[in-house]
Amino acid sequence: MVYDLIIIGAGPAGTSAAVYAARQKLKLLIISKDVGGQVAKKAVDIENYPGFEKISGPELSDLFAGQLKKNEVEIVLDEALKIEKTGEKFIISTSQNKKYEALSLLIATGADPRPLEVPGEKEFIGKGVSYCALCDGPIFKGKTVAVVGGGNSGFESASFLSNYVKKIYILEFNEAPKADKENQELVRKSGKAEIITSAKVLKIEGGPLVKSLTYQKMDEPAFRPKGYPASADKEKKLEIEGIFVEIGYSPATAFAKELVDFSDRDEIKVETETYQTKTPGLFAAGDCNQGKYKQIVTAAGEGAKAALAAYEYLQKTKK
Amino acid sequence: MVYDLIIIGAGPAGTSAAVYAARQKLKLLIISKDVGGQVAKKAVDIENYPGFEKISGPELSDLFAGQLKKNEVEIVLDEALKIEKTGEKFIISTSQNKKYEALSLLIATGADPRPLEVPGEKEFIGKGVSYCALCDGPIFKGKTVAVVGGGNSGFESASFLSNYVKKIYILEFNEAPKADKENQELVRKSGKAEIITSAKVLKIEGGPLVKSLTYQKMDEPAFRPKGYPASADKEKKLEIEGIFVEIGYSPATAFAKELVDFSDRDEIKVETETYQTKTPGLFAAGDCNQGKYKQIVTAAGEGAKAALAAYEYLQKTKK
Repeated sequence: MVYDLIIIGAGPAGTSAAVYAARQKLKLLIISKDVGGQVAKKAVDIENYPGFEKISGPELSDLFAGQLKKNEVEIVLDEALKIEKTGEKFIISTSQNKKYEALSLLIATGADPRPLEVPGEKEFIGKGVSYCALCDGPIFKGKTVAVVGGGNSGFESASFLSNYVKKIYILEFNEAPKADKENQELVRKSGKAEIITSAKVLKIEGGPLVKSLTYQKMDEPAFRPKGYPASADKEKKLEIEGIFVEIGYSPATAFAKELVDFSDRDEIKVETETYQTKTPGLFAAGDCNQGKYKQIVTAAGEGAKAALAAYEYLQKTKK
Repeated sequence: MVYDLIIIGAGPAGTSAAVYAARQKLKLLIISKDVGGQVAKKAVDIENYPGFEKISGPELSDLFAGQLKKNEVEIVLDEALKIEKTGEKFIISTSQNKKYEALSLLIATGADPRPLEVPGEKEFIGKGVSYCALCDGPIFKGKTVAVVGGGNSGFESASFLSNYVKKIYILEFNEAPKADKENQELVRKSGKAEIITSAKVLKIEGGPLVKSLTYQKMDEPAFRPKGYPASADKEKKLEIEGIFVEIGYSPATAFAKELVDFSDRDEIKVETETYQTKTPGLFAAGDCNQGKYKQIVTAAGEGAKAALAAYEYLQKTKK
């Protein structure tokens, strides 16, 4: 069985693409680790997806899943490990040792949380270190936690956590948080957050569970008198029991490396409008490509465009 | 009062942009002829907007309007006639003789139906000639009508009209209709449609209401024996009482001509990703720009990107 189009990933980009492709009556398959992608794991209600004043991530994700089902889209829960192109055909090898073939391919694998890469981080995953406030937040009820990252994800996580925890430190590497004003206000209103800027996380310690986070306040050395040794820069320690890492995402794109070019952030390079990669018939939409703005609705828009472009590609090559 | 951002238009692109801009706490105004744009006038249920298995155009349009209200977006029902830039400020002059000022501007005016430009068309507008099946379809109950245009809009209109009329001729200029397979099937299933390809509409006649449409079957002259005069090409006449023109849209962009470049279809030229025009601080999203794919979700995605780009522009210029 050679599919017309295989979509890898079932977040907003993959879902939107699948709906468009199904309506074009393409022989269609989705290969994905899960359905809903990051949307299903969102910690706070979504208020910026047009059409919904307010909806939870899991609810929106369920609506996406329902729409796939209604359009009779075949979904395989599996992970793409490698893609190749032989002649006109793409071959996808998966972690369950399966091979799938298609005439066109859309990568919509989104991105995975970026790790801090500091001592103690890996050791304490599941023992206080988390990359998903929605999943793990409630178990920190009444405790003091840190959120690392002052972007929208960091503040959204902090906002969600404020329903449970006693106190939240938000550590931002830059001089000011980058989150939307609205998200910042929400967190400030909770009265539970202390924002620490110019903070570089150095290490995580504890045993058997997380007990502390050590960081360096990077703007303070600037006030150091001349000749004062750099080694004296104050390391500060926060007594905390949970750490939520929200410093961005790395695109999940390594499996495609033979057929695409990457940006310096491992994002797949694509053409304007069609979202086609350097390989004809291979497209990439949503957070996995080099697009600047990564939102649910922008991913959905890109998925639709890529599916329509894939349809045109198929019409041309089939002739 | 100088706004941070004025958005012209309140369809999917304008609405999405407004939601994002409001959440950034920008001083924000929408100037628009209506709320909902083309979505509000859609003749058939929408089944390809991610998040909704099936929703009518007016319903989705109401949800957009509700989201604008919830975000306290100020809307003025008016039409932009001219835009200028003086120093850092944009000045918008409207048909109600008002002037509005803003530091950045997003054009999201969508597109208006393209006219056939044949004799009788203007004369019979409202007397049988229509550009909106949803608005005017029901009054043709039990009658025979023509839809001109075999793209998605044409077939969607035909599908909607099939609930009311006795018979529908669909006239397509090209050799085959361009509509999605799914849309074509739906219309065929109604059993009321006759599709005429390679058809060039020549004139509309009647009095006081539409009585007929005359077209030329363009693929037939090819079989004409050598020397057979072209003037003998058969003109064919359809006895019909309604004509729905669905041959595409012209972007509503003339008012912007001093500050933007146009494609050969009067679409505004924009940069990738930011949707900025050649004028810094002036953006264009949705059907009014030169983008290839014009869908509700693609317009919404572009609106979000343009609003985020406008926010970044403002941060830079305010510093």
